[in-house]
Amino acid sequence: MSNHHTYKKIEMVGSSLTSIEDAISNAIAECDKSVKNMDWFEVTETRGHIKNGQVAHYQVTLKIGFRIEGS
Amino acid sequence: MSNHHTYKKIEMVGSSLTSIEDAISNAIAECDKSVKNMDWFEVTETRGHIKNGQVAHYQVTLKIGFRIEGS
Amino acid sequence: MSNHHTYKKIEMVGSSLTSIEDAISNAIAECDKSVKNMDWFEVTETRGHIKNGQVAHYQVTLKIGFRIEGS
Amino acid sequence: MSNHHTYKKIEMVGSSLTSIEDAISNAIAECDKSVKNMDWFEVTETRGHIKNGQVAHYQVTLKIGFRIEGS
Amino acid sequence: MSNHHTYKKIEMVGSSLTSIEDAISNAIAECDKSVKNMDWFEVTETRGHIKNGQVAHYQVTLKIGFRIEGS
Amino acid sequence: MSNHHTYKKIEMVGSSLTSIEDAISNAIAECDKSVKNMDWFEVTETRGHIKNGQVAHYQVTLKIGFRIEGS
Amino acid sequence: MSNHHTYKKIEMVGSSLTSIEDAISNAIAECDKSVKNMDWFEVTETRGHIKNGQVAHYQVTLKIGFRIEGS
Amino acid sequence: MSNHHTYKKIEMVGSSLTSIEDAISNAIAECDKSVKNMDWFEVTETRGHIKNGQVAHYQVTLKIGFRIEGS
Amino acid sequence: MSNHHTYKKIEMVGSSLTSIEDAISNAIAECDKSVKNMDWFEVTETRGHIKNGQVAHYQVTLKIGFRIEGS
Amino acid sequence: MSNHHTYKKIEMVGSSLTSIEDAISNAIAECDKSVKNMDWFEVTETRGHIKNGQVAHYQVTLKIGFRIEGS
Amino acid sequence: MSNHHTYKKIEMVGSSLTSIEDAISNAIAECDKSVKNMDWFEVTETRGHIKNGQVAHYQVTLKIGFRIEGS
Amino acid sequence: MSNHHTYKKIEMVGSSLTSIEDAISNAIAECDKSVKNMDWFEVTETRGHIKNGQVAHYQVTLKIGFRIEGS
Repeated sequence: MSNHHTYKKIEMVGSSLTSIEDAISNAIAECDKSVKNMDWFEVTETRGHIKNGQVAHYQVTLKIGFRIEGS
Repeated sequence: MSNHHTYKKIEMVGSSLTSIEDAISNAIAECDKSVKNMDWFEVTETRGHIKNGQVAHYQVTLKIGFRIEGS
Repeated sequence: MSNHHTYKKIEMVGSSLTSIEDAISNAIAECDKSVKNMDWFEVTETRGHIKNGQVAHYQVTLKIGFRIEGS
Repeated sequence: MSNHHTYKKIEMVGSSLTSIEDAISNAIAECDKSVKNMDWFEVTETRGHIKNGQVAHYQVTLKIGFRIEGS
Repeated sequence: MSNHHTYKKIEMVGSSLTSIEDAISNAIAECDKSVKNMDWFEVTETRGHIKNGQVAHYQVTLKIGFRIEGS
Repeated sequence: MSNHHTYKKIEMVGSSLTSIEDAISNAIAECDKSVKNMDWFEVTETRGHIKNGQVAHYQVTLKIGFRIEGS
Repeated sequence: MSNHHTYKKIEMVGSSLTSIEDAISNAIAECDKSVKNMDWFEVTETRGHIKNGQVAHYQVTLKIGFRIEGS
Repeated sequence: MSNHHTYKKIEMVGSSLTSIEDAISNAIAECDKSVKNMDWFEVTETRGHIKNGQVAHYQVTLKIGFRIEGS
Repeated sequence: MSNHHTYKKIEMVGSSLTSIEDAISNAIAECDKSVKNMDWFEVTETRGHIKNGQVAHYQVTLKIGFRIEGS
Repeated sequence: MSNHHTYKKIEMVGSSLTSIEDAISNAIAECDKSVKNMDWFEVTETRGHIKNGQVAHYQVTLKIGFRIEGS
Repeated sequence: MSNHHTYKKIEMVGSSLTSIEDAISNAIAECDKSVKNMDWFEVTETRGHIKNGQVAHYQVTLKIGFRIEGS
Repeated sequence: MSNHHTYKKIEMVGSSLTSIEDAISNAIAECDKSVKNMDWFEVTETRGHIKNGQVAHYQVTLKIGFRIEGS
């Protein structure tokens, strides 16, 4: 067995009508459909759209790190 | 009709007793009194004041982009 | 009495199972046990761990500024 | 007469179907309708939209500096 | 139908003998062969090679955002 | 009365023949002619022109924050 | 044959018990199992874990650039 | 005797009614009451408060490096 | 038992005659004399002194994160 | 023959009445009069002057890398 | 006569016992001995040494831009 | 004798088949052929080329500071 791991980081943008945390969760839930071994996330950008003078939805860019299967 | 738009970005600081999202909403609501065509926002700074060992209020700096009327 | 104050900034990482705001509060509450005169905070990093395809906890790095006692 | 000037910088986003330079010109032309004494610009962001696998338009964010009238 | 979308951002380097815009187009055209739903790009780096005292080709790094199919 | 305030930040460039502090003061004094409730400033850039091998004048870019009247 | 190439950059985290260079090599070796035409790398972050008051392992984040097959 | 030294960097905010240099000196003078072997400083932020349309005081954030006693 | 931890980050500069890794180890070893529960480090700056046209020693600035005892 | 090369990077500002690419070419052409072995460039800043509400000229700052003769 | 100029930027560190402005002047005065056509400067770093609990001297890093003779 | 010094910083890229430290040394050794009074270096970029799935060589960009002769 190897004494070290290798990870990959991918960059996702999650969105939500309600909160920053929900936008993060949505991005992670979407990744969970195809990515194994997700380990951590880092928020790199928080923004959103405005409609009728109100936040229409939040858009949070995050990097998601996951261990390469078998490493 | 023009085939392109021009936008202006202004920098606001919203504050709130309760949450980061609420501070964002407060800044946008205040702008809505005088700015038309607001389209998106970008958070550039999240901070706040502390009183009696607790968050007294959140202060969120955001850039708000809006389309120049007529462009 | 001096006509100026001096502040120190320390860097903390708070964590929470539930939200970014809660992670901020947890870091400040922990500091409150040993630091007097806390005045403001600045978020410098937002990240977290993922377990079973969901956010396990948020980790928020913040700088906390406090007035040096007697300054 | 004063021996110094004061300038203001505003942040605009110009767009264009054809080029980065054209997006810059469009933002400046729009400002020229209401701003006097424009003196320089600084590009801070270059991005754009994609449609049907092609650049639909360029979006260039620039800061525009102009001398305050009378300063 | 979901009330939110999730996007992925990938980082590409396009090159061109003639212009920055052409390097951007080349990167997007290459992605178009395998990526659906491309929505926007962000330029993060502009550089190039020099040969015989002249620009040999431009190299433009850009992030390309696309909606995750089905999200 | 509202339990929160909203602030706007504008970006100015002050100049001076003599010092960085004087350039800051000149920018603030110019703003004071038209802006109410100025509260704080943040220096973002310090530069200047050189003539005959000497500093001709300092140019200091600063963001000025002020409370939105009525907020 | 095309007169230009397109590259993709991916972000990896390699780790090692012994050195920064070894962590870089481990990340590249792992990628080599599935990625062709790797051309260059850029270190973006150097960190690591501490155990018992000593470096337990180094973690180096690097972007790896490779030519898109056929471009 | 060791052939190498270890330093710690702390982050302070000094303030002054009169100048940036004075704010730096005030922060260092305050540290001098409790910190030995101070060796260098690095300015990381220059800002201040405005009152009645004038600089009320300068606030300069600086990192102060000092050698760990005995290292 | 709490379901969350709080960490503090301190900034150290380690030095070494021989390598970057050794400078990191020296800083951590020095901290180990007074800091418990050290968990991770992040390199923020790599520099050094030159003497007689050769590297005299490496100086590596790193942030060290440790769990607050009892949190 | 050495198995490694050493490069120097210099920072130039090229200007042009017509385009960003032309400003880059002008800077490189000027360097070509005195610098050998120019190998690559990196754009670090794009700005320009405005006259009569139009771009008067583009100013592009670029770093130019060249191999040290004999290395 | 050419309709455009080319500039070079060099990076200097000036020092002074008394002020930031004096450190800037000292760097420019030193350059003036060998560099013609100096046009502007940009401060990129402000730091200094501490001796006996006081600022021993200021060190200001600045980029100096000058027109290439004949361009 | 002057009570202050002036320094110049130049930017070099050293390369090595074996390590980051060796790339730094190679850049400094090359400079030593023509530059006097070298005093310190600052690493600004670490990258390298990949061949056959392995690091072919490291490329380290560093700024080298040296005292201006006679200052």
